[in-house]
Amino acid sequence: MRWSSFYHTASRVFHEYPSWSKCVVVCTVISGGGLVSYGDAGPVQSEYANQSQKKKVVVLGTGWAGTSFLKNMKSSSYDIHVVSPRNYFAFTPLLPSVTIGTVEARSIVEPIRSVARKSGVNIQFSEAECYKIDPKNNKVYCRAGQDKKLGGLEEFSIDYDYLVIAMGARSNTFNTPGVEEHAHFLKEVEDALRIRRKVIDLFERASLPTLPVEEKKKLLSFVIVGGGPTGVEFAAELHDFVHEDISKLYPSLKEYVKITLLEAGDHILNMFDKRITEFAEGKFQRDGIDVKLGSMVVKVSEKEISAKERGTGQVVSLPHGMVVWSTGIGARPELLDFMKQIGQINRRALVTDEWLRMEGYDNIYALGDCATINQRRVMEDIAVIFSKTDKNNSGTLDLKEFQDVVGDIIERYPQVEIYLKKNQMKDIATLLKQSQESSVSVNIEFFKEALSKVDSQMKNLPATAQVAAQQGEYLADCFNRMELCEKYPEGPLRFRGTGRHRFHPFRYKHFGQFAPLGGEQTAAQLPGDWISIGRSSQWLWYSIYASKLVSWRTRTLVVSDWGRRFIFGRDSSRI
Amino acid sequence: MRWSSFYHTASRVFHEYPSWSKCVVVCTVISGGGLVSYGDAGPVQSEYANQSQKKKVVVLGTGWAGTSFLKNMKSSSYDIHVVSPRNYFAFTPLLPSVTIGTVEARSIVEPIRSVARKSGVNIQFSEAECYKIDPKNNKVYCRAGQDKKLGGLEEFSIDYDYLVIAMGARSNTFNTPGVEEHAHFLKEVEDALRIRRKVIDLFERASLPTLPVEEKKKLLSFVIVGGGPTGVEFAAELHDFVHEDISKLYPSLKEYVKITLLEAGDHILNMFDKRITEFAEGKFQRDGIDVKLGSMVVKVSEKEISAKERGTGQVVSLPHGMVVWSTGIGARPELLDFMKQIGQINRRALVTDEWLRMEGYDNIYALGDCATINQRRVMEDIAVIFSKTDKNNSGTLDLKEFQDVVGDIIERYPQVEIYLKKNQMKDIATLLKQSQESSVSVNIEFFKEALSKVDSQMKNLPATAQVAAQQGEYLADCFNRMELCEKYPEGPLRFRGTGRHRFHPFRYKHFGQFAPLGGEQTAAQLPGDWISIGRSSQWLWYSIYASKLVSWRTRTLVVSDWGRRFIFGRDSSRI
Repeated sequence: MRWSSFYHTASRVFHEYPSWSKCVVVCTVISGGGLVSYGDAGPVQSEYANQSQKKKVVVLGTGWAGTSFLKNMKSSSYDIHVVSPRNYFAFTPLLPSVTIGTVEARSIVEPIRSVARKSGVNIQFSEAECYKIDPKNNKVYCRAGQDKKLGGLEEFSIDYDYLVIAMGARSNTFNTPGVEEHAHFLKEVEDALRIRRKVIDLFERASLPTLPVEEKKKLLSFVIVGGGPTGVEFAAELHDFVHEDISKLYPSLKEYVKITLLEAGDHILNMFDKRITEFAEGKFQRDGIDVKLGSMVVKVSEKEISAKERGTGQVVSLPHGMVVWSTGIGARPELLDFMKQIGQINRRALVTDEWLRMEGYDNIYALGDCATINQRRVMEDIAVIFSKTDKNNSGTLDLKEFQDVVGDIIERYPQVEIYLKKNQMKDIATLLKQSQESSVSVNIEFFKEALSKVDSQMKNLPATAQVAAQQGEYLADCFNRMELCEKYPEGPLRFRGTGRHRFHPFRYKHFGQFAPLGGEQTAAQLPGDWISIGRSSQWLWYSIYASKLVSWRTRTLVVSDWGRRFIFGRDSSRI
Repeated sequence: MRWSSFYHTASRVFHEYPSWSKCVVVCTVISGGGLVSYGDAGPVQSEYANQSQKKKVVVLGTGWAGTSFLKNMKSSSYDIHVVSPRNYFAFTPLLPSVTIGTVEARSIVEPIRSVARKSGVNIQFSEAECYKIDPKNNKVYCRAGQDKKLGGLEEFSIDYDYLVIAMGARSNTFNTPGVEEHAHFLKEVEDALRIRRKVIDLFERASLPTLPVEEKKKLLSFVIVGGGPTGVEFAAELHDFVHEDISKLYPSLKEYVKITLLEAGDHILNMFDKRITEFAEGKFQRDGIDVKLGSMVVKVSEKEISAKERGTGQVVSLPHGMVVWSTGIGARPELLDFMKQIGQINRRALVTDEWLRMEGYDNIYALGDCATINQRRVMEDIAVIFSKTDKNNSGTLDLKEFQDVVGDIIERYPQVEIYLKKNQMKDIATLLKQSQESSVSVNIEFFKEALSKVDSQMKNLPATAQVAAQQGEYLADCFNRMELCEKYPEGPLRFRGTGRHRFHPFRYKHFGQFAPLGGEQTAAQLPGDWISIGRSSQWLWYSIYASKLVSWRTRTLVVSDWGRRFIFGRDSSRI
């Protein structure tokens, strides 16, 4: 979800200004049963023959993965049709700032049509929801316009040659009763705007002259569930808002505000280094934010939230004016249907191989929060790895044979490298050598044993914007070089099959993570175990976020929002 | 309604920065039946005795009139309690710009609490609706928090010593069937935001691949009803949006867009000079905006609008994707009840005297769009005017007697002056002299006859922001000097009573009017019959609107919105 981080690709990816002349998006859509030719500008007929030979790529979703894919598409040998219920891309890491008006919602969104126009390739967009995928017939079914006044439901289907699923995920309630009805989520721009209105509503309500103090206190009890970066940042922003702005405009109410953060685990920000966790917990304590660790929410009602304390086993109830729920993600219902249909049952996301392809479907890709990469285990393939490496079929591997293939092994099974690093071994030969002397010559049994532990190093990628953006970029790069790589494959050896894979597998590079803690304090965890906390990180955070914003427009707007907040404070108008 | 105009008071009124220390708003509210002491900061008890001697002023509404009143209050001898369903002031002349994103909604609003804080006097605010006024017991009844999740309806009453009614008006549908259900109004910020979303919805819907061309054309038929400044400006803004932004992002749809403006009268902008009207009609014709004059809308349905053409008497139906209704204003339902209660039946607004006091209620004031001034007729008072002027009771007036009182007559009955100006008479003596020679000496019959026509010059003030703002400023000035003027009345002679009126009556100064026509063209009609059309007026418009914005914050934001629009275009994200 979050993308608190990084130092890379930035400018190249985000600064491109396109040739303005290439606005012609022409594409053919077979729908319902009839053939409908649909032109988005200019002379349609003349280009039709030409167009129809292009491969049709359907992209579902305009979040980090989908948008990053679109931005990086360079090849004009595809007709791209994007389908999403949202006609814009949102820079989600700033959503917590939108909730209380540090940054305006409009400043962090970019219409997907401008993104498409700037990329300079043929991209058509439909504001619709995909409700069914038919992988056998290469078709997706979409519906649009739930608003009756616009003409009601409009359903259509689109054929594809390649399908890119980047539909994201939804907030996970873990089936806790009352969460859907009474809690706010913080995943979409609409969520952030709803929270903003609600916060102001609460303060206005608490200002009414007849309201007893007890009632004011209940209204101004804000409870945040989930101590991940989003929850922590929202708590920090809310605290800043109360102390910087509310205290001036609603001076009598400040003392009644209570912010509580419930975390089921032992610590907040548990994906961060211990030093950051400790600092954050300390800062929140000083700020008066009540952090309750080991609190597992069991029920949310209209005015109360109940949590079970792990230590005592007791269920404690708190009154609340607002609950913000930010505990993790789950699969979207549309995708659950699809997963059932293709036999991926009981998975939290669509399973792909290391090239982001859906298992069993060569022309369907899934990326971002809706997907998870099923990294192949070394032990599954140990026999074929051995036999491929043992070129002379001697039954043993010598160093020479081994060195020919070691690169491919490490590329295909990245857990090997992680294991070596973790155990401070220089290379795979060291692993195999162990007690033996200079020359390496091992049989399959020994080989199996030596590699038996590497699979324990496999980890799922985090569901962050950083991962999604890298996947989108990777996939676009594959599409751009599809023809070339068909001829000259660049990937590792196929251990099970023959020849090489067309592409290098996707490899995630972690560029670190930020956690804004309020009051100009930000914690940063950067690669190489580098930790930084304080004002300097805040400025690093400002500058990196600004540089990663999707366009010059959003960049200018967000920076001017920050400036405005410094000068004028946040706006408390209830619109 | 609109406030397209002016060159005055500006900086003094809007630039004030308050002493930040005076945030203490303490006030006593008797509610329900019990006495509730309500403090908005600091030590309540010690100031209580002091506070309770202050006069309680309740202000209903935070529009132009109410906010202008608050901004100009300087006297600390009042406790002011503001009640409004909106906790912000909106700069309504820019609403048409908000509808399509030339300016952001947040940029034109200012929280009423910051306005109050900056004014430096004791102001308390409650976000609530006044649903009943009880003038006999000096009480208003309010309700707040219709949202059940916040605790449902909260009702309370407030006592007042003075009541200032500035609740504005609502759009007038003239009971045309279907308008409430199927048309958009353009009076509130919410209206503008709804229109913005709807416009984008329509373009997204029309982009769906399966939609037939006929349907696209219907969806993109925008019909604006009412050729006043708001309707004209919205039509112009929409046209700009289509040609500057939509044509880039939805290139294939541009040709299907049709903008129609229906006006029941003979011309659009009929309150403006003929030259402006002609220019506007010509420009709209060149732009392809279809202006249908003499078209009286008789029905609006979900997908069609029917209008009767005055010339032919035929009823013509047009398909529409969206109707924006902007034909004038009517009284709010809450005020209709109140008007019934106090016997003001069949009036379009609350009737006040020339000091903005409700007729029959010395401590209730009404201003802005919800009020209308009932200017006293000369002919009603002609006998008392004559006898007051005839000091020596001679039965005739001579020049000397007349000159003593002429100033008071003109101040009390401004229609006299307008009549003189219109008939190019130097002064009232000229009027009386007529055929007679040097010395004026007239009897009552002659006096009556000479003044018999002046009442024909009485006109209601237009329902504009300019009038409302001047009324708010005027009333605040009266309140600020209430004690002084009780002792030393400064107003004209009371012809019916004895002594003088405390204050000068309210006198409206018209500073001209703007009508933005799109494409950087603005028509300006300034006092002294000065007409200006074109780019220079556009810059005049920019600079005056910027200078009149309510705070430095809104000023900065609006100007940066304009800049952003020039550089990046408007945002078409649907949020």
